[in-house]
Amino acid sequence: MRVDGKDLRTIWLDENETVVKIIDQRKLPHEFVIVDLKTVDDAITAIKDMYVRGAPLIGVTGAYAVYLATLNAPDPQIANAYLIGEAARIKAARPTAVNLSWGVDQVLSAILKRIAPEDKIKAARDSAGAITAQEVENCRKIGQHGLPLIEKISRHKAGKTVNVLTHCNAGWLACIEHGTATAPIYAAFDHGLDIHVWVDETRPLNQGTRLTAWELGKHGVRHTIITDNAGGHLMQHGMVDLVIVGTDRTTVTGDVANKIGTYLKALAARDNNVPFYVALPSSTFDWNIKDGIGDIPIEQRDPEEVKYVQGLDKDGPTRVLICPPTSPCANFAFDVTPARFVTGFITERGTCKATEEDIRKLFPEKG
Amino acid sequence: MRVDGKDLRTIWLDENETVVKIIDQRKLPHEFVIVDLKTVDDAITAIKDMYVRGAPLIGVTGAYAVYLATLNAPDPQIANAYLIGEAARIKAARPTAVNLSWGVDQVLSAILKRIAPEDKIKAARDSAGAITAQEVENCRKIGQHGLPLIEKISRHKAGKTVNVLTHCNAGWLACIEHGTATAPIYAAFDHGLDIHVWVDETRPLNQGTRLTAWELGKHGVRHTIITDNAGGHLMQHGMVDLVIVGTDRTTVTGDVANKIGTYLKALAARDNNVPFYVALPSSTFDWNIKDGIGDIPIEQRDPEEVKYVQGLDKDGPTRVLICPPTSPCANFAFDVTPARFVTGFITERGTCKATEEDIRKLFPEKG
Repeated sequence: MRVDGKDLRTIWLDENETVVKIIDQRKLPHEFVIVDLKTVDDAITAIKDMYVRGAPLIGVTGAYAVYLATLNAPDPQIANAYLIGEAARIKAARPTAVNLSWGVDQVLSAILKRIAPEDKIKAARDSAGAITAQEVENCRKIGQHGLPLIEKISRHKAGKTVNVLTHCNAGWLACIEHGTATAPIYAAFDHGLDIHVWVDETRPLNQGTRLTAWELGKHGVRHTIITDNAGGHLMQHGMVDLVIVGTDRTTVTGDVANKIGTYLKALAARDNNVPFYVALPSSTFDWNIKDGIGDIPIEQRDPEEVKYVQGLDKDGPTRVLICPPTSPCANFAFDVTPARFVTGFITERGTCKATEEDIRKLFPEKG
Repeated sequence: MRVDGKDLRTIWLDENETVVKIIDQRKLPHEFVIVDLKTVDDAITAIKDMYVRGAPLIGVTGAYAVYLATLNAPDPQIANAYLIGEAARIKAARPTAVNLSWGVDQVLSAILKRIAPEDKIKAARDSAGAITAQEVENCRKIGQHGLPLIEKISRHKAGKTVNVLTHCNAGWLACIEHGTATAPIYAAFDHGLDIHVWVDETRPLNQGTRLTAWELGKHGVRHTIITDNAGGHLMQHGMVDLVIVGTDRTTVTGDVANKIGTYLKALAARDNNVPFYVALPSSTFDWNIKDGIGDIPIEQRDPEEVKYVQGLDKDGPTRVLICPPTSPCANFAFDVTPARFVTGFITERGTCKATEEDIRKLFPEKG
């Protein structure tokens, strides 16, 4: 994606293929810092302390962490026992992230069967590279399948600005390129359509303000930041043509777990006949759960994230207390939007309605 | 209301009845500062720069500002021409606030007919005092009429905690005592009911976090601050029994203009069968407007309020930039909740449904 005129991904290898490069996303949007990951410990820190976030990016970082393990093996033969131990350490960095285990195990299984150290190193690099390419391709396809939705609105509006609202960051910063919710937006922009994005702030961690606004701005996509409270008003007044969000987990019946507040936007979209789409790679479907509200556990995070807001004052980055110090705060991280409010899903294989029948029709191999 | 064990109002006269005392609400919750208003200019600054806010409190401050004009007249006879000029200056402090004109004109009409300077001063003081008493009484009655709604839920839950969600600050800080949305809450608390309040942060200006949490905490009411995104999730999981909000203007047909984001909570309340009440003195009804979404103009405020968040860091009060400096922000201050999502109104004369018929039945003198 474009950043200050250069093409960029969230993760890449340096020219010698010995150092993994990432953007330290904790510092965005006020500082743009590229960090070198040279060791497994570097990668673990980057995952654990959220230099990188977003399921696809965490998975790819884990995959490259196994590659770093092969480069840094104490034993010139790169013993499998060592690799298995390092893989376990990497997976423990964020134990609940399914993509992390998946990325690490993919690379591990590709290298354990190799004997020669140079074959192991090459297999790790190739496997991590293949995972990366697959993630990029999935997001690119989500963009291609979402593009006609935006094109149709654009035609209907005789080429006037198409206004898309999104919540949180399901952008390329959460992935490698394109993003999920943002993929159709970038596809439309690159296609020359007149598009404008309403960016929900997304309290408490402000992923909209900090990350989505930053990446849209750097790529040149016109956007406006709004508070999480504003979307309903905009929809009432015809200022939103389409909502696209990402998801952390979606049931096979179409219930969508996503960043807290998504449900409120889905309600407003329904009340104002605004299409509400969820963009996701098929890996995000949970094929075993049918009742999103009853069966998806909602993480409660540190109340400090509600009590304090991060930002930049005249002396640099800081955080400010925004409430009485004695007032308790609660911090629910996600909510579930019932399938009945979802117009459709945009996946790497095409779009479908938010029903079990339609989802299974698109992915018949899931049984 | 109780603050650190003392009874307090938002505005009062000192013992000599020559100085008007107010709380500088800009500094809450981190600093509690009482400010002396000794001159008309002091009062204008307090209104214009939002030391005081909230329609009832602005009206009463305007009324006392006219009283200050009588005390500070350059002419010992306190010429009416001078008083009329000062009244115009006061009313211009926030020209769109209906209550301000109303409060100022009430006092002015009480004093213009008096001849003796001491009669003028006394009439101004008495008139401002009467307006204050009327506002307090209206809020007290809203509390008494709202109390049975909470009592009924409490009985239904066999005395277990009643969870009320509120948005913004329609508390005593916006009024003189009791508040509007908070009046039934304080009445229930003082009545010994087990009550807990979910306080919406209310971005961009965080009136929930800064003011509602502060006043509930000081009065001893159990509460928890949540982001504006969280209410829908809480309602889905049975954690909200009742929503009560205030309003800036409500049409005679029952459409409710209130702080941006109110509409989203009303949608979630409807989807989860949670009662959604609006507390208001009858002066907030607009008897001439029938279509809230079409006919109530929505103020757009300075985008800086979205871009920056105020709070306290280690060096004291400050504000932080929370987004890329080049990203545009939009700041719509209010939204309109259509009457069909409102369970009922709580007024000084009792409760009623959100229909023109029921509203007019409660206030037949409005024709």
